[in-house]
Amino acid sequence: MSDEGNSSLNVSGRKATVVGGGVIGASWAALFLANGLRVTVSDPQDGIEAKVVSYIEEAKASLLARGYPAFDIGNLSFEKDLAKAVSDADYVQENGPERLEFKVELWATIEQAAPETALFLSSSSGIPASKQSAGLRQPERLIIGHPFNPPHLLPLVEVVPSDKTPPELTAKAVDFYDAIGKVALEIRKEIPGFVANRLQSAIFRECVSLVRRGVVTIEDLDKVVVNSLGVRWATGGPFLSFHLGGGEGGFAHFLEHLTPGMESRWKDQVATDVQFDEDTKKILLAQIRDAYGNSPIAELNAERDMKQVTVLNSLARSAGKVE
Amino acid sequence: MSDEGNSSLNVSGRKATVVGGGVIGASWAALFLANGLRVTVSDPQDGIEAKVVSYIEEAKASLLARGYPAFDIGNLSFEKDLAKAVSDADYVQENGPERLEFKVELWATIEQAAPETALFLSSSSGIPASKQSAGLRQPERLIIGHPFNPPHLLPLVEVVPSDKTPPELTAKAVDFYDAIGKVALEIRKEIPGFVANRLQSAIFRECVSLVRRGVVTIEDLDKVVVNSLGVRWATGGPFLSFHLGGGEGGFAHFLEHLTPGMESRWKDQVATDVQFDEDTKKILLAQIRDAYGNSPIAELNAERDMKQVTVLNSLARSAGKVE
Repeated sequence: MSDEGNSSLNVSGRKATVVGGGVIGASWAALFLANGLRVTVSDPQDGIEAKVVSYIEEAKASLLARGYPAFDIGNLSFEKDLAKAVSDADYVQENGPERLEFKVELWATIEQAAPETALFLSSSSGIPASKQSAGLRQPERLIIGHPFNPPHLLPLVEVVPSDKTPPELTAKAVDFYDAIGKVALEIRKEIPGFVANRLQSAIFRECVSLVRRGVVTIEDLDKVVVNSLGVRWATGGPFLSFHLGGGEGGFAHFLEHLTPGMESRWKDQVATDVQFDEDTKKILLAQIRDAYGNSPIAELNAERDMKQVTVLNSLARSAGKVE
Repeated sequence: MSDEGNSSLNVSGRKATVVGGGVIGASWAALFLANGLRVTVSDPQDGIEAKVVSYIEEAKASLLARGYPAFDIGNLSFEKDLAKAVSDADYVQENGPERLEFKVELWATIEQAAPETALFLSSSSGIPASKQSAGLRQPERLIIGHPFNPPHLLPLVEVVPSDKTPPELTAKAVDFYDAIGKVALEIRKEIPGFVANRLQSAIFRECVSLVRRGVVTIEDLDKVVVNSLGVRWATGGPFLSFHLGGGEGGFAHFLEHLTPGMESRWKDQVATDVQFDEDTKKILLAQIRDAYGNSPIAELNAERDMKQVTVLNSLARSAGKVE
């Protein structure tokens, strides 16, 4: 059981079909299993079973550490035939390739075979529901449920309905994610990248710019963020941070005194050309090797996951949500 | 004793003069006292003593929770006369108003009165050492030691020398901050906002833009960040995150597959006009009231501090640096 869940919905024993068994799909599958759901993964790729099982076995350690009960993979099955895979689904979480035509066809197949009451959820980070649903008889059924990698750990799910989706259906999607311990937030307009990835892009533009200009190395830039903004934003968002940064005068003080400096930095930043040209790519790759080249990706991943578990647990404890 | 400190320098019993007793100065004073330094605060403001003592008493709880030993304020003194205050200083940490002429004059006074060996450190977030030092006989002595608020908690100090500063002196500043448990990182070029504040400005431009356009409320945007990017960046910087986001292919895979989407978002973001005009300010202030208006600033601050303590402690434990 998760410590963030605040929904009264009980999803244990319900059936989730995970479409696409890459890392996002496998991570969803692990989280669903940890919440007591029955899970079918549908992916035509040969050998997908071993990959997904291996991912889930690794994710298990983090999920146990997060406070979920032990689970085995007896509730996990595979079905390459998509129509069969969704025929008794309560929830469909789609994680297919990010190609519009592919997704349009996929959803049409799903709609024909799935129960009328199944929720249609897409992990897409880039293709909004209004476009993916072009081939559906009931396009209003499709809702984006965009997780943050890794989905079994990071709480956020951006829930982005199209303008055809009735609020009750969006509420059902939010309820489902709440019930499995996620923090589901509704994004009010379909916009490329939704919110979290747009913010990430904005900061990364300046990251690339500063490294490119030799102000800071990749290794030091990452340390700067971990030791300042990361801790700050793990405990309060950017607006709360400036509200508190304004002292007793709060955000009004910030607006009065600190925005001129910020606006002048904005001008400078917007005016600076930043691109992933060949020179930039070379510099970035060389510095990534300097900073992280000696550690296997799997090891860095495991370390990152364990750190995220410890941060999430400590925040949950401090909020009094865990014993 | 801090768990991050990895310096062999022992600063206990040394003398630090904190110039300016606002929140940044008071926070430095608390951290210095916790590290066993003798501290003199110099600030001409009436009643500054009570304010600084009150800040330190409040900060004490966080510092104890971070693992520093109990300390009393017997090692704290006040001296309004700046020349007297720095006359026996080993370290001068300046936190005066962010006005160039003011700082130039301040440092000239300090240089005349302070020992030859004292380190001259400025908390300035915006005025580089090369400008502040204009009135010094030895301008190379002045180095930026820019903390992140609150300095007694967030580990980062951006150490920014001017191009006149000899590397040995920069190394001494880094050693000092290391010795008191900070993570001191040298920034290689004087650039407005240095690194952390430039990154913060870049992301905040998009925050304001998204709220202004009605994509998301301030309350939800803050939740988005806390539940995704915050936890991500508290445990690994933006470059490591994309290195791991690239799966087995690492950062090279990211560069190949994910940069076109990011570049197209960059174009869109740069092309969008974002300003703190009157309408924008009104919208932001109203939403800040909706999100945080019911909680006194002091309460929000205490909550934030305790969350930061718990995150920092949990990360230190996971790194095996604390029992």
